Amino acid sequence: MEEAIVRAACALGAGLCMGLGAIGPAIGEGNAVGKALEGMSRQPETMGMLRTNMILGCAITESTGIYSLVIALLLLFVF
Amino acid sequence: MEEAIVRAACALGAGLCMGLGAIGPAIGEGNAVGKALEGMSRQPETMGMLRTNMILGCAITESTGIYSLVIALLLLFVF
Amino acid sequence: MEEAIVRAACALGAGLCMGLGAIGPAIGEGNAVGKALEGMSRQPETMGMLRTNMILGCAITESTGIYSLVIALLLLFVF
Amino acid sequence: MEEAIVRAACALGAGLCMGLGAIGPAIGEGNAVGKALEGMSRQPETMGMLRTNMILGCAITESTGIYSLVIALLLLFVF
Amino acid sequence: MEEAIVRAACALGAGLCMGLGAIGPAIGEGNAVGKALEGMSRQPETMGMLRTNMILGCAITESTGIYSLVIALLLLFVF
Amino acid sequence: MEEAIVRAACALGAGLCMGLGAIGPAIGEGNAVGKALEGMSRQPETMGMLRTNMILGCAITESTGIYSLVIALLLLFVF
Amino acid sequence: MEEAIVRAACALGAGLCMGLGAIGPAIGEGNAVGKALEGMSRQPETMGMLRTNMILGCAITESTGIYSLVIALLLLFVF
Amino acid sequence: MEEAIVRAACALGAGLCMGLGAIGPAIGEGNAVGKALEGMSRQPETMGMLRTNMILGCAITESTGIYSLVIALLLLFVF
Amino acid sequence: MEEAIVRAACALGAGLCMGLGAIGPAIGEGNAVGKALEGMSRQPETMGMLRTNMILGCAITESTGIYSLVIALLLLFVF
Amino acid sequence: MEEAIVRAACALGAGLCMGLGAIGPAIGEGNAVGKALEGMSRQPETMGMLRTNMILGCAITESTGIYSLVIALLLLFVF
Amino acid sequence: MEEAIVRAACALGAGLCMGLGAIGPAIGEGNAVGKALEGMSRQPETMGMLRTNMILGCAITESTGIYSLVIALLLLFVF
Amino acid sequence: MEEAIVRAACALGAGLCMGLGAIGPAIGEGNAVGKALEGMSRQPETMGMLRTNMILGCAITESTGIYSLVIALLLLFVF
Amino acid sequence: MEEAIVRAACALGAGLCMGLGAIGPAIGEGNAVGKALEGMSRQPETMGMLRTNMILGCAITESTGIYSLVIALLLLFVF
Amino acid sequence: MEEAIVRAACALGAGLCMGLGAIGPAIGEGNAVGKALEGMSRQPETMGMLRTNMILGCAITESTGIYSLVIALLLLFVF
Repeated sequence: MEEAIVRAACALGAGLCMGLGAIGPAIGEGNAVGKALEGMSRQPETMGMLRTNMILGCAITESTGIYSLVIALLLLFVF
Repeated sequence: MEEAIVRAACALGAGLCMGLGAIGPAIGEGNAVGKALEGMSRQPETMGMLRTNMILGCAITESTGIYSLVIALLLLFVF
Repeated sequence: MEEAIVRAACALGAGLCMGLGAIGPAIGEGNAVGKALEGMSRQPETMGMLRTNMILGCAITESTGIYSLVIALLLLFVF
Repeated sequence: MEEAIVRAACALGAGLCMGLGAIGPAIGEGNAVGKALEGMSRQPETMGMLRTNMILGCAITESTGIYSLVIALLLLFVF
Repeated sequence: MEEAIVRAACALGAGLCMGLGAIGPAIGEGNAVGKALEGMSRQPETMGMLRTNMILGCAITESTGIYSLVIALLLLFVF
Repeated sequence: MEEAIVRAACALGAGLCMGLGAIGPAIGEGNAVGKALEGMSRQPETMGMLRTNMILGCAITESTGIYSLVIALLLLFVF
Repeated sequence: MEEAIVRAACALGAGLCMGLGAIGPAIGEGNAVGKALEGMSRQPETMGMLRTNMILGCAITESTGIYSLVIALLLLFVF
Repeated sequence: MEEAIVRAACALGAGLCMGLGAIGPAIGEGNAVGKALEGMSRQPETMGMLRTNMILGCAITESTGIYSLVIALLLLFVF
Repeated sequence: MEEAIVRAACALGAGLCMGLGAIGPAIGEGNAVGKALEGMSRQPETMGMLRTNMILGCAITESTGIYSLVIALLLLFVF
Repeated sequence: MEEAIVRAACALGAGLCMGLGAIGPAIGEGNAVGKALEGMSRQPETMGMLRTNMILGCAITESTGIYSLVIALLLLFVF
Repeated sequence: MEEAIVRAACALGAGLCMGLGAIGPAIGEGNAVGKALEGMSRQPETMGMLRTNMILGCAITESTGIYSLVIALLLLFVF
Repeated sequence: MEEAIVRAACALGAGLCMGLGAIGPAIGEGNAVGKALEGMSRQPETMGMLRTNMILGCAITESTGIYSLVIALLLLFVF
Repeated sequence: MEEAIVRAACALGAGLCMGLGAIGPAIGEGNAVGKALEGMSRQPETMGMLRTNMILGCAITESTGIYSLVIALLLLFVF
Repeated sequence: MEEAIVRAACALGAGLCMGLGAIGPAIGEGNAVGKALEGMSRQPETMGMLRTNMILGCAITESTGIYSLVIALLLLFVF
């Protein structure tokens, strides 16, 4: 029974961790991508530079989403 | 009974994980797609470039939605 | 009794998963469709291109809604 | 008693699924319809095209609402 | 007692389903109606067309509210 | 005791159903009425037409509020 | 004891029903009244017409608040 | 014990009813009063008319607050 | 024990009633006062009239806050 | 034990009452103070009048915060 | 045990009271400070007057935060 | 056991107090810092004065965050 | 068992404290950084000064995040 | 059993800590990245400087996300 309670808590914790942790990065990246596309359509000649920086910015923003994935995986397989 | 508690927690955790994790990416992508369509209607000649970058941006934004899917599937079939 | 708890959790999890997972995609798509219609009424000549890209964008945005449907169906019939 | 718990969870799950799942599509469609009506009143000559695309866009947006209906019906009659 | 739990869950589920499901369509329709009235007061000559499309758009938006009604009625009388 | 649980759930369900279901229609109608009044003060000559359409639009928006009333009454007197 | 549970649920349900149901109509009416006052201060000559329509619009908006009152009173004295 | 449960539920219900029911009217009235004051400072000559209508509008908006008070008092002294 | 449950519910109900009931009036009044101050700084000559009406408007807005106070005091000392 | 339950409920109720009741007045006053400072920086000659009215307006807005304090103190020391 | 329940409720109540009560004043003051800094950068000559009134306004806004502190300290050391 | 319940409540209360109490000050200060940086980039010559007042304003805004810290530390080490 | 309850509460409290306490500072700093970058792109010559003040402002904003970290660490290792 | 409760609380606490703590930094960084991309598309010559400062600002904003990761890891492996 003891093991079951720990595993049940791990399952719930991993679900909440990834579910909540997916909200922020996606909204933030959508905001950044939107601004990049807005700029591209106005100054098409800056497209290459904007895309590079958009990917860089999204990679930074993605980080907390990846932390959530790591914690969820640790809860499922290591803890 | 022990197994049942773990499996019930997995079912609830997977449902919450995917349900919450679907909110962010879709809102973010809707924002990015909207900005891309706005730009296309203003500068129709930039359409190809905007579509390419919109798909690229959405692929990045989609990532946390896919993490949620992975964690939900792991909760259902592996954990 | 054990089976009953697991099935009850599956039913609740599937309901929450699809219910929450339907909020984001629909709001995001409504935003994208609205922007597309706004652009069409201003530049009627770009209608074909905007419609194609609106459908493409909505298909991408729809993805997390479909993930939610998949997880809900898996909870009901496979898990 | 076991059957009763499963059926009670199905009833609650179906109610939450359809109740939550009705919020997003309706708000998204209201947004799209509003933008279409705004465009029609400004460019009455684009009315036919806008109406066609408004219905198309709403049909796409409606999809997650229909997924919610399907899951709710499955919870009530199949599961 | 078993029957009572199922019926109690049906009553709660039906109440939540219709209560939550009434929020979205009404807000969406209010948005669409407001945009239509705004357009009518600016271009009174487009009134007939706007009213027709407003009713069409609201009928589409109403759909998820009707799904909620159907699920609530099914929970009360069929399930 | 069984009857009491069902009736208690009906009372709670009816209260939540009508309470939540009153939020959306009223906000939506307030939005539509406000837009109509705004239009009337700018184009007083369109008053008759705007009032007719405002009442029509509010009647449509009212529908989900009435569905909530119906479900609440069914929970109290029929179920 | 049975009667007590039903009456307690009625009391809680009536309180939630009226408490939640008072939020929407008041915010909607405040919005409509504010728009009417804004219009009156700009076109004082439209005052009579705006007041008539403001009262008409508020009467429509009030309806869901009155439904909530009816359900709350039914819960207290009839159910 | 039975009487105690009913009275405790009445106390909680009355508190929630009045507490929640005070949020909407006050925000709505603050909105209407703010619009009236804004109009007065721009067209001081419309002051009398605006004040009359502001009081009229607030009286209408107040109604759901008064309904909440009535239900709360009924819960405390009559039910 | 019976008396204790009723008194405990009264204490919680009074706290929630006044705590929630203080949010709306204060936000509404802050909105009205802000609009009045904005108008005063633009038309200093309307100061006396604006202050009179600001106090009148706030007195109306305050009413639901006072209702909350009354219900909370009734819960503490009369019920 | 009875006394302990009442006192525990008083402690929780007082905390919630003051905690929730501090949100509204402070946000409302911050709004009013911000508008006053904005007006002062534009018309420095109206400073004295604006400060007097800002303090008057904040005193009115503060009232529901003081009601919360009164109820919390009554819960702690009198009830 | 009785004393423990009261002290536990005091600890939770104090935490919630100060935690919730810190949200409002800080947001309100940040709003007021932001408006003051905005005004200073536009009319540097009004700096002294704005700072004096900013501190005065923040002192008023701070009041509900201090009430929360007082109630939390009373819960910890006096009650 | 008694001591354990009090200490557990202290731990939860301290966590909630500091967690909630960190939201407001940081958002308020971010708002104030943003306004200060905006002003600096427009009138670089006002930098010194703006920085002084920004720090002063943030120190005032920080106060409720420090109150939360104090209550949390008191819950951990003194209560 | 007693020690276990305290430690479990510490773990939950630390998680909530740091999780909630990370929301505010990050949103506030993102706001400040955004304003600084906006200013830099408009007046590139003010870059050095803006960066210095941005770091200063973020350090102040970070403070409540650090308080949350301190309380969480104290809950884990000292309490 | 004691160890199981502590470990279950650790799992839930870590999940909530990282899940909630991922929302703020990602939204804040998305905001900052969006502003940086907006500036780049307007003044392409400031790209290098903006990118450097964007990364610097995001590193600061990321800090509370990393604190959440640290607390979650400590909950899983050290506590």
